[in-house]
Amino acid sequence: MGRVTQRRKVHRYVLDGSAAAMEFPVRHREDVLAVEEPLEIRLGNLSFSVTMRTPGDDFDLVAGFLVSEGVIWDADQLISLRFCAGEDENGVQTFNVVEAQLRPDVPLPDTGRHVYTSSSCGICGTDSIESVTKSSHFNPAADRLTVPVETLASLPDRLREAQAVFEVTGGVHAAGLFRIDDDGGAELLCLREDVGRHNAVDKVVGWALRERRLPLTNTVLQVSGRASFELVQKAALAGIPVLTAVSAPSSLAVELAESTGVTLAGFSRGTSLNVYAGSGRISTPAPMPR
Amino acid sequence: MGRVTQRRKVHRYVLDGSAAAMEFPVRHREDVLAVEEPLEIRLGNLSFSVTMRTPGDDFDLVAGFLVSEGVIWDADQLISLRFCAGEDENGVQTFNVVEAQLRPDVPLPDTGRHVYTSSSCGICGTDSIESVTKSSHFNPAADRLTVPVETLASLPDRLREAQAVFEVTGGVHAAGLFRIDDDGGAELLCLREDVGRHNAVDKVVGWALRERRLPLTNTVLQVSGRASFELVQKAALAGIPVLTAVSAPSSLAVELAESTGVTLAGFSRGTSLNVYAGSGRISTPAPMPR
Repeated sequence: MGRVTQRRKVHRYVLDGSAAAMEFPVRHREDVLAVEEPLEIRLGNLSFSVTMRTPGDDFDLVAGFLVSEGVIWDADQLISLRFCAGEDENGVQTFNVVEAQLRPDVPLPDTGRHVYTSSSCGICGTDSIESVTKSSHFNPAADRLTVPVETLASLPDRLREAQAVFEVTGGVHAAGLFRIDDDGGAELLCLREDVGRHNAVDKVVGWALRERRLPLTNTVLQVSGRASFELVQKAALAGIPVLTAVSAPSSLAVELAESTGVTLAGFSRGTSLNVYAGSGRISTPAPMPR
Repeated sequence: MGRVTQRRKVHRYVLDGSAAAMEFPVRHREDVLAVEEPLEIRLGNLSFSVTMRTPGDDFDLVAGFLVSEGVIWDADQLISLRFCAGEDENGVQTFNVVEAQLRPDVPLPDTGRHVYTSSSCGICGTDSIESVTKSSHFNPAADRLTVPVETLASLPDRLREAQAVFEVTGGVHAAGLFRIDDDGGAELLCLREDVGRHNAVDKVVGWALRERRLPLTNTVLQVSGRASFELVQKAALAGIPVLTAVSAPSSLAVELAESTGVTLAGFSRGTSLNVYAGSGRISTPAPMPR
């Protein structure tokens, strides 16, 4: 798996408290860790962002990050992606700097969001929601997809089965994009893993942009962790109508899902799930006669 | 719990696949969600950062964020913290903007990190580690603390017992700071919860700064999730000698722990744990005679 995982020596302590005389065997063994490295995203000569990520699918990550930030929404707006062609002072090409060239008519994003001065005192959840709906070029609310609840409930298991890095490290998040067939079944289109759950989603969205599949109508995005505001933002900006998480959503994630028309499910655990927004897309079978 | 949790209507689906005729009861009930709202951190008139967080302990969050960014390390460098005194355009005081006033001799942080232009091509993990060690004012490597392995292994349960918001929402991360006694026991000094695990740690560190307890010698920081580079960074900059996580560390987290002298444990699950760096601080009892 190359740069995605790394073997490290580890001291493993096992506490056996079953006997009066407790023992603490210490095993010296190797453990497989998920690799985390910085990635710098450049727009031409401008350093746009530095993010910690698991190397791999870096072009997808950069493309998806630009979609999630509302910068681009069409593959034609992205002229090229390449690793920085030079070397560092030690003569090493680190593959940790990706340069994106945008079409000249694409406005450069507001990278000053961390430095602006504002006289307003009122940042709140509503502002955050408005900034997403304003920068959205797709409308998930218009997607007429319906998903059988049993299909939706099966996705966490299917995600886990397909996760390669998690299996060996236990330390990465996953995002899986599923297309819902006419008969209600789900086909896995793209799975991405990363130490950062936001990155895993960006990698999926970037894959879709580069495959010219945006907006992602008739799809469900299954994520391994919780559903935060930012994950709903990423789904909405990619036109994904259904986002479902293994764990809990936040209050603002639910509010953003309602505002953008994204169906949001959580605590999806195989035999039960909660739907917090857009439950009209969830279909249940007719009761069987007894 | 006021603004920390929020009740929302939810559609709960339970799949009962035990009979030939599957049923899908849908219960309409209320669920308690962890609140997520934006917090803007201002340094005087300068907007330094906007982060999504669970409201509560906001002054701790801001103080800890400034420590974690290497801006301050002493309570005297922080003259005041206050909520923005004005109102938004609707006349509402949102309590989502905190203004920090730093002592005039404290250099303003480099907020341009997202916009700088660099000709170097070589950002890598080593650069990230160097930037932490350069900005560190404490030296966790010098801390002579030893922790009995059974004490360390007990901390996840103690963290969970003390978590109030998680119990009702299932949706927040926690960070707990424990002081290790001379007899090897652990006393919980401070617990903080947040939808963001980085925020939970910042809240703990900020509490410690404001209590004038930095550097946090003789302490262990127990976190609920994984151990990323940034969590080790926060521990190192606060002078915390031991960081232990319920889940996996990343490769760069281990490397940073080695470089800064922080003991890093992971997969701490009550009866076993792995130590990835600084295992010299972990003590095991002498074997009992049989």
